[in-house]
Amino acid sequence: MSLDDAATQKPHDRLSAVLTADMERVNALIKTRMASEHAPRIPEVTAHLVEAGGKRLRPMLTLATARLCGYEGDHHIRLAATVEFIHTATLLHDDVVDESAQRRGRPTANLLWDNKSSVLVGDYLFSRSFQLMVETGSLRVLDILANASATIAEGEVLQLSAAQDLRTDEAVYLKVVRGKTAALFAAATEVGGVIAGAPEDQVQALHVYGDALGIAFQIADDLLDYGGSTLEIGKNVGDDFRERKLTLPVIKAVAEADEKEHAFWHRVIEKGEQHDGDLDRAMAIMARHDAMEATRAEALEWAAKARASLTSLPAHDLRDMLSDLADYVVSRVS
Amino acid sequence: MSLDDAATQKPHDRLSAVLTADMERVNALIKTRMASEHAPRIPEVTAHLVEAGGKRLRPMLTLATARLCGYEGDHHIRLAATVEFIHTATLLHDDVVDESAQRRGRPTANLLWDNKSSVLVGDYLFSRSFQLMVETGSLRVLDILANASATIAEGEVLQLSAAQDLRTDEAVYLKVVRGKTAALFAAATEVGGVIAGAPEDQVQALHVYGDALGIAFQIADDLLDYGGSTLEIGKNVGDDFRERKLTLPVIKAVAEADEKEHAFWHRVIEKGEQHDGDLDRAMAIMARHDAMEATRAEALEWAAKARASLTSLPAHDLRDMLSDLADYVVSRVS
Repeated sequence: MSLDDAATQKPHDRLSAVLTADMERVNALIKTRMASEHAPRIPEVTAHLVEAGGKRLRPMLTLATARLCGYEGDHHIRLAATVEFIHTATLLHDDVVDESAQRRGRPTANLLWDNKSSVLVGDYLFSRSFQLMVETGSLRVLDILANASATIAEGEVLQLSAAQDLRTDEAVYLKVVRGKTAALFAAATEVGGVIAGAPEDQVQALHVYGDALGIAFQIADDLLDYGGSTLEIGKNVGDDFRERKLTLPVIKAVAEADEKEHAFWHRVIEKGEQHDGDLDRAMAIMARHDAMEATRAEALEWAAKARASLTSLPAHDLRDMLSDLADYVVSRVS
Repeated sequence: MSLDDAATQKPHDRLSAVLTADMERVNALIKTRMASEHAPRIPEVTAHLVEAGGKRLRPMLTLATARLCGYEGDHHIRLAATVEFIHTATLLHDDVVDESAQRRGRPTANLLWDNKSSVLVGDYLFSRSFQLMVETGSLRVLDILANASATIAEGEVLQLSAAQDLRTDEAVYLKVVRGKTAALFAAATEVGGVIAGAPEDQVQALHVYGDALGIAFQIADDLLDYGGSTLEIGKNVGDDFRERKLTLPVIKAVAEADEKEHAFWHRVIEKGEQHDGDLDRAMAIMARHDAMEATRAEALEWAAKARASLTSLPAHDLRDMLSDLADYVVSRVS
C-alpha cells in the first residue's frame, strides 16, 4: 500500500490494515468459542451472523485502544472477541424483538431457524462472552462490561415503551441510543485502556471517546434515513418513518410542532396510519423547523467531543486513525 | 415452633425457618436491584415473576452452604440474589421458547405483556446478576457462574433439537437436565462454599451435592408426570406426553421398544398424532419394560449420591437439612 493510498483510505480500513494480525487471532478465537460439541444448532446460527461480513468495528476499537496504550499481552484478543459476542447476542435478540426479516442484506436467524433459536443462541453467546472476560482475570474489566450490559438491556426495554410515543424527548432518546450503541462502544474502548494498565485520565478519555463516537454514529444513521441513498446506508430513505421510529429529527420537529403538525405526527407515528405523500410532508415539516440542520449540528458536536477526548492520549498513528474515524462517521451527513 | 413440629416439617420449610433473616435481606436486595429508573416495564414484569411465591430453593441453597461452611460476611446475600436473578431470567426466556401460557398457576409474562418484554427483561436480569457477582470481588465465583451460564444456555439449545427426536438417549437427556436444572443448583451450592473460603474438598463436595440434587429433582419431576396427582405436582398427569416431551421414562421405553412400539412412539412423539387412549397405551408400554421402575431407581441413586457427598462437610444442623432435602425431592416417587 503506498502512502497515497493510505491517505485516501477510509479510517476504518486503515485501522483494519494496521490491526490485521490481531484481528485474525480474534476471528480464530471467535470461531473456537462459538463451537458447541453438544448443540450443533449453535455454530450454525452463529456462523450465519458472525461470518456475514460485519465490519467488526467494536472489536477493532478494543484492539486499537489497547495497542495505543502500549499493551503487549494477549488479553486484548479475548476482550475484542467478548465485545463481538455481546454485539452478536444483542443482534440476535433485537431481530426477535423487532420481528426483522433482513440484516446486512441476508435473511435473519429468526427467519431461517426460529425465534427460539435466536433467543437461546443469543443467551449462549452472552455466556460465552462472560467466560472470555473472566479469563482476563481483571475485576475492573468485568465491572465495566457488567455495567455496559445492564445499560444495553435497560436501553432496549426503554425503547419498547418509548417507541411510537410522541412524549419521548431528547433525554430519553439519548438513553436509548446509549443502550443501543454507545454503551458497548464506550466499554470496548475503555477496556482496551484498562487491560493496558493506562493511567486513569487516559482510561476516562477512552470511555468518553467511545460514548461520543457511538452517539455520533447513531445520530448520523438517523439522519441518513431521511436523506441518504440506499447505496450509502443499506436501507431505503424513509424506512424509519414507515416503521414509525421516533428518531432525533422527528423528536426535534415534534417539540416545535403546532396543533396541526402534532395531529399529523400523532396519526403517522402513534396511530401508524400512513398514506401516499406522508413521507414528503414529514420532511417538509422537519425542514420548516430546521430539524435536520439541528440534528446534523448535534452529530457534529458529538464527533468533536470524541476527537477532543483523544488529546490526553499518547501521540500514535492509531490515535490519529481513531480521530479520523470520529470525523468519518459524521462525514456522510456534514 | 416445638421440636415435634420441626421433626415433621418438610426439610425445605426447616431450611426456610433457619435462614429467615438472611432470606429477608436477599428479598430486599432483589427488590432494589430489579428496579429501573428509566424503564418501568422492568419492575412490572419482574415483580410478576419474583413475587409469584416461588420456593426460593436456589438462593436458599447458597445461603445454607455458606453458613454451613462458617461464613460470617455479606457476600452470600449478593450471591443468593444472583442465583435467583439467573433463575428468573431463564424462566422468562423459557416461557418465550415454550410458548407457555401459565407458570406457577398464573399467566406468564409473555402472555401478560409480550415476547419482546420477556426477552429483554430476561437480558436485563441476567446483566443485573452479573453486576451483583462482580461486587463479591471473587474471580473464582465469577468463573463458576460463567461456566454454569454456558452450560444452561447450551442445554437449552440442545433441548430444542433433542425434543421430539426418538434418537435422544440417556446421555443427551443428562446434558439437557444439567442445563435445565442441575448446573444452577451446583453453582448455587459451590459458590456458597467458595465465598466461605471452605477447603477444596468441601467445595467439590458441594458441587457434587448440587449437581446430584438437581438431577434427582428433575428425574422425580419427569416420573410424577406419569403418576402424581395435579395436587402434588401442579400439573396434570400426562402433560409431558401431550407436549411430546422425551423424558427419562419414555427414553427408557423407547430403548427397549419392538417394531410395533417404535411405530407408536414415532406417531405420538415425533409426528405428534395423538388419539384417545394413547396415554394409557404409553403407560402400558412403559410398564411392560419396567421403565417407571428403572427411572425411579435412578432418581434414588442420584439422591443417595447427593447425601453421600455431604459426609465430607462439617457436622451441622444445616448439613442434616440438606441431606433430608435430597431424600425429600425423591420421596414423592419412592
